[in-house]
Parts: sequence; structure tokens; C-alpha cells
Amino acid sequence: MDQQSYKIALAILYIMSFGGTPDTSNCEIHTPHNILHLWKEDIHVMKNRDRRDTAQKEMTPSKKIPVLVDGVVLNGPQTDVKAGEKFVEEVCRLVMEEVCEWQPPEQLRQLLDLEMRDTGESQDKLLRLCRDVIHFSVKTNHPRFFNQLYAGLDYYSLAARILTEALNPSIYTYEVSPVFLLVEEAVLKKMIECIGWKEGDGIFNPGGSVSNMCAMNLARYRYYPDVKEKGLSGLPRLILFTSAECHYSMKKAASFLGIGTQNVYFVETDGRGKMIPEELERRIGQARQEGAVPFLVCATSGTTVLGAFDPLDEIAEICERHGLWLHVDASWGGSALVSRKHRQLLHGIHRADSVAWNPHKMLMAGIQCSALLVKDKTVSFLLIFGNPVNSTLKCLEATLLLIPCRLGLIR
Amino acid sequence: MDQQSYKIALAILYIMSFGGTPDTSNCEIHTPHNILHLWKEDIHVMKNRDRRDTAQKEMTPSKKIPVLVDGVVLNGPQTDVKAGEKFVEEVCRLVMEEVCEWQPPEQLRQLLDLEMRDTGESQDKLLRLCRDVIHFSVKTNHPRFFNQLYAGLDYYSLAARILTEALNPSIYTYEVSPVFLLVEEAVLKKMIECIGWKEGDGIFNPGGSVSNMCAMNLARYRYYPDVKEKGLSGLPRLILFTSAECHYSMKKAASFLGIGTQNVYFVETDGRGKMIPEELERRIGQARQEGAVPFLVCATSGTTVLGAFDPLDEIAEICERHGLWLHVDASWGGSALVSRKHRQLLHGIHRADSVAWNPHKMLMAGIQCSALLVKDKTVSFLLIFGNPVNSTLKCLEATLLLIPCRLGLIR
Repeated sequence: MDQQSYKIALAILYIMSFGGTPDTSNCEIHTPHNILHLWKEDIHVMKNRDRRDTAQKEMTPSKKIPVLVDGVVLNGPQTDVKAGEKFVEEVCRLVMEEVCEWQPPEQLRQLLDLEMRDTGESQDKLLRLCRDVIHFSVKTNHPRFFNQLYAGLDYYSLAARILTEALNPSIYTYEVSPVFLLVEEAVLKKMIECIGWKEGDGIFNPGGSVSNMCAMNLARYRYYPDVKEKGLSGLPRLILFTSAECHYSMKKAASFLGIGTQNVYFVETDGRGKMIPEELERRIGQARQEGAVPFLVCATSGTTVLGAFDPLDEIAEICERHGLWLHVDASWGGSALVSRKHRQLLHGIHRADSVAWNPHKMLMAGIQCSALLVKDKTVSFLLIFGNPVNSTLKCLEATLLLIPCRLGLIR
Repeated sequence: MDQQSYKIALAILYIMSFGGTPDTSNCEIHTPHNILHLWKEDIHVMKNRDRRDTAQKEMTPSKKIPVLVDGVVLNGPQTDVKAGEKFVEEVCRLVMEEVCEWQPPEQLRQLLDLEMRDTGESQDKLLRLCRDVIHFSVKTNHPRFFNQLYAGLDYYSLAARILTEALNPSIYTYEVSPVFLLVEEAVLKKMIECIGWKEGDGIFNPGGSVSNMCAMNLARYRYYPDVKEKGLSGLPRLILFTSAECHYSMKKAASFLGIGTQNVYFVETDGRGKMIPEELERRIGQARQEGAVPFLVCATSGTTVLGAFDPLDEIAEICERHGLWLHVDASWGGSALVSRKHRQLLHGIHRADSVAWNPHKMLMAGIQCSALLVKDKTVSFLLIFGNPVNSTLKCLEATLLLIPCRLGLIR
């Protein structure tokens, strides 16, 4: 069964298990990779409902918005909770058995023998270890493996990754890594074009968390260049704004950069998980009244749980009015920019000051490949010296990935 | 010619070119990989001397401390400056020609054709691109390639890297990455043993800069746990101490974490590039007098330029007396811990609170593989949530690397 057939089969099985005739008006579009998450959420909701009021469960139909995957409605009102739950458990077991031979930590520790002895090991034993590593690992390229980081296996990306590992470059200077430096330049240029900027710069990072963190550092530097030398001691509270549905890396970054998690002001979202622009405006006013200094708004294009896209145009409007740096965390959703059909989800992204976009998600580069892109080329030096990571190896993958028809194929 | 013979040949040629009978008393031990750097430094010194006083150059013998590599003295007093300079230039040309077909950026851009077209490319063209990428890249595994990050090619590491790329794991949970999580645990355990701690914890990072930065965050958290939520605003100046020869990532980390580069107090070093403990004590006193708050000392085991090892025991003594967190940046020199002969260079490292150690340097793991190790297991949660990077992929390489007799071979 190929991957597409499998997705359709999954969708059909889902409908079979949860039954009912869904209301298709006002549908939310979801990509296949967060179906499993939705399943789990459904089960959680059902379990709680079950506990609260077992007698009433048949009489209280769900009010949720139906979810459309490739034109198929997936989450109509539930009827037979027990059967649905059992079905999902069985499918999960099936998936796990095929994707990985599951072993709990204690057993796996004994099976693998990872003790490192001073006497070393024979080549035969090392080869056996390699076989075991493969056998007991989760096959993330398996068509039945679904996860928010993964979109499947791209053979061109894999080839590029093997090539990269063999050459083992470090791209801190042109002299030591001429090809990879030019590849990085070419990929960043294409990504900047996709965003719609006339010019810009960027850097590859090991994950969206680093890209978001680095963007926060750039925004702070633009606001208070003195922070670099003098630090935050003695400055008023700096405040950043992001939606309540944002990635947890925003809080982590605020903690790491010495800004403090309390100075991340979360903006309320609507029923679809999108930031409400009026609420953003209200929170900015609140911060100012408290005597604090707003400096950054982080919008999300593709939230972790719901896959929601914040309304960028309206948010950009507010940022321009208040003179705030606009960062878009498009780590997951950024890849919609190469789709003629879905790029409207990020309408207004060209008004952002910086964008985080992870080719290792929907563009199928190897983990971890995240790009931080900035509109203002004059902050370029900070991309390197203001970044915790010196260099990255994943740009070649990104090129080989973007070249082979991807831009033509994804519509 | 194998790698060992090549190194010896290089050493002999060096002596031939710079001539003279060196003074072998009071020798500094250097590893082969920073020879090239020393050469360049010699040339620079000679050039300047040449300009200042051409007539006297034959009459002013160098006063430098001789450098021993594998028992061979490398930098005796120079006599024929011109011949030496020419020789080095020729060797460099030879090395570059064999290690990589050199092309300046403009030419290479035209040769590669990295334009990404919306119509995509044929498989044939992609294969040609792969060939060109290899052809014009620096072969970092070539026996004539020397650089501070590299120690050569380890076949077991390469095998593990290819395996890792094929499985493409993300080790945020046991469920998604059971084997890699246990491998990480086993490697960290062995590294902690090497340091001499009874227990501890750790995480793999993409580079020593991230490890150093994360250590700084841990030290700050222990001193002021409130920083996580409230930030640095309103706090007194936090001060950290490190040697004048430390890696530049210390300043970068201070900037990134909102501490400020001015609050990195550099401690004077001796003629060998080692931190002078009395100077450290003096600087701590100075900071206190200024009303600032010392919180961290960063010692370096293997400085970037001279390969110097700070006196850890004396520094630990001072840290204990003043209640300061001791971090050891052993990114380069940490691997001496697996050598029975050289581990005394890091004597006292078990008294550190945290250690950065990069297996991608002298242990020959693939780039980038840096471990941050901490003595206090109670800060473990911060290793993950206080770290800019979510997960790493290089631990398998480290295991395969450490297993095959490495601990037995390196003496």
C-alpha cells in the first residue's frame, strides 16, 4: 500500500470508528500529519466526558468543527466511544509493531549491551550493534510513522545527508567549505524570494527553537543596541507578545535571554487557535501602562497543536503602528509558501522582520534544518555572532530537496 | 604515506625550513593539529621583524619556547626567513591542491549552477551536482587536511553517521527514539566517569558554543532562580570570569543571555596562555568592590590558539572559597581525559560544576557533537528546557566512536 492510499484508508477507518454524519459547513483544513494528534485529543475529550456523565454520553453530540483531510471529513460527532477508543488502540499497536519492535527501557538496555569497555570491541560485535540499533529504532521513514516533525522520506535529501556526512564540512569560512557556503547562500536566496522580500539574509540553525531565540536577540538588539555590551541589568522590563497557542520555545527563549518568562504576554486566540489582533493591541497598551517596554511580536504560522495560522496582515499593521519587530514562527507552516494553493495562509509574511522556517518538517530535509531569515541585511553580523550555533550542515540537504521538482510538484 | 608518517615528515620539513639548534629545556607540548597555526604565527612574527629591521634579522635569535610534537622540536630559532616563508607557502599550495580543487567564489558559482528553478531538475543533473559538490569541496578526511576542529576520519563514526541519517531520529522522547535515548545515556555515563564524578547528567549540543552558553544559564539559575521568570531587569550586574585566552563563545554567550559582554572579566594569563589564579582572585575582589555580583568562573582546558590548560585545582579552590560555579570549557582538550598519559593536564576537573567536551574534535565524531555535562543532577530539567536546542543526533556516533577500542588505544 503506498503512502497516499494508506492516508485515505486511515481516514476511512477513522470515520468508521467515530461514525455519525458530520456537519461540513465551516470546515478547518488539516494536513495528514496531525491526524493522530487529533485522534488522541478526541479520545481524551471522550474519556473525560465518559467519567463526568456516563449516562448522558449518547445524548450529547459533539459541537466540534469538522476536520477535512484531503477532502474527507474526519471528526464528525462521536457515537460509540468504547468501540472508537478500542479501534484506535488497536491501530496504534499495529503501527508500533510495524514501525518499530517495541521494548521498554529496561529490556532494551539488556538487549543492546551499550557498556563501553576500556578494552574495546571487535568489528563483528560493532556490526551486530548496528543491526540491533536499526531493528529496535523507530523507522521514521515508514509510511505508518506520523509525527509533527516528519513528512516522510525524501530520497534526494537522504543522498545529500550521506554526502554531507562523508565530507563532514564546517561552514565557518569559505576557505574550509566553499561549496556548502554557496549552497547555503542559494537556498537562503530562494527562501527569501518565497517570503516575498526584495533582499534579506539568513542562517541555518539546528531547530526552530534556536531560530526563534536568535530572532528575539535581533529584535532586542535593534531596540537597545547597548544590551550587547551592558546587558539587561538596569533596563526596564522588555515585553514580547505571542499567541496563547505558540510554541513553547518562546518562553524558553525569554528565560534563556534573561528577559524572563513573565514578560512573555500571551495573546488570546479565537476558536481556531488564531491570535485575535484586537487582543494584541489591548495587551500592548497594558504593557505600556505598566511602565514596561514592548519590543517584539511573534506570530505563528502553523501552531503546534491546531495548525492555526495567525492573521499576519492585521498583526503587521499593529507592529508598524507601534514600532515593534514582527517575527513569524513559521517553523511548521512556512513550507506552505512553496504551494500555490496554500501560500495564502501566510498572506502578509513579507511584512515581517524575521521568519523561522524549518525545511526538516514539510519539506522533508533531514533533522535538524531550520532557517532564520531576516529582512534587514545590516543585522547580518548578528546572525553569526549573535547566534549560539557556529555553523550548520543541513543546507546541502535543503538544496537537493528544493531542486528536484519540489517547487513544481507542490501545488 | 600514512597519517603518522606524514606528521613526522611535516615535522622534519619544518625543522629543515627554520633550521637552528633549539633549546629543549622548558618545552611546551603541542598536538599535531595546531602546528599549521604555529607556522602561520611564526611567519607573521618574522614578516613584522623583517619590516622593522631587515639588517638585524640575522643577529636577533628568537627567544620563543621550543615546541615539542611527538618528541620532535618544531620551532627552534629561525635563521633563513625568506626560505622558510617560501617553503611554507609551497607546502600550503600542495596541501590545498590535493585536499580540494580551489576556486574563488565567483568562478565556483558559475561552475556549480545552484539556481533553483520552479520546473525542477532531472535526476541526471542532480547526480552531476553531487559529483561537483564532492569535487570542489575540501576533503576534511584527507591526511593533509589540518584544522582545529578535525583530527581525521574515523570509519566507525562515519558508519554511525550514515546509519543515523537513514533512521533520522529525534530524541525528544523514549517512544520516538528508544535506542538513541539509551545510547545517549550510555555515552554520557562514560564521559561522566572519565571526568571522575560519582554521578551527573548531560546533554549533547551542536557545538561547544551552545554547551558553554547553556552552562552559563545553569550557573545563573543556581545563583538567581528568579531570573527564569522575572529576567535580569532590576538585578545588579552579574559578572563571570574567564581567561584572556578563552574561546570567543564566552562573550557571545554573555551577550545572548542578556548579561552583557562588559560583564565578562578577562583574567590575565601566563606566558603559556594559562589563567593566573592570583589574577582571578584579584578580579573577583574588584567586581565585588564595584557592587557587582560574581557568579561564574569559566576555565579553559585547551585554549583555541595556544592549546593551554588552565590550572583547574587552583581555580576550583578559589571557586569553592567564593561560592562560584566552575565551568570547564574542555571542548577541545576534554578528549585528553581518555588518555592515561595526558589526562593529568585536566587534573582537578572533577571539582567542576559543569564541563563542555566535544567528541567531534580529538575523538573524531562527526561535526557537530558537543556534550555539556553537569555534576548536580537536580538541574537536569534545565538541560532540556533551558537549552536552545531540543535534541541531537550525534550521540550514536559518539558511542560507536568510543566503543571500538578508542579507550584502549589512546594512551
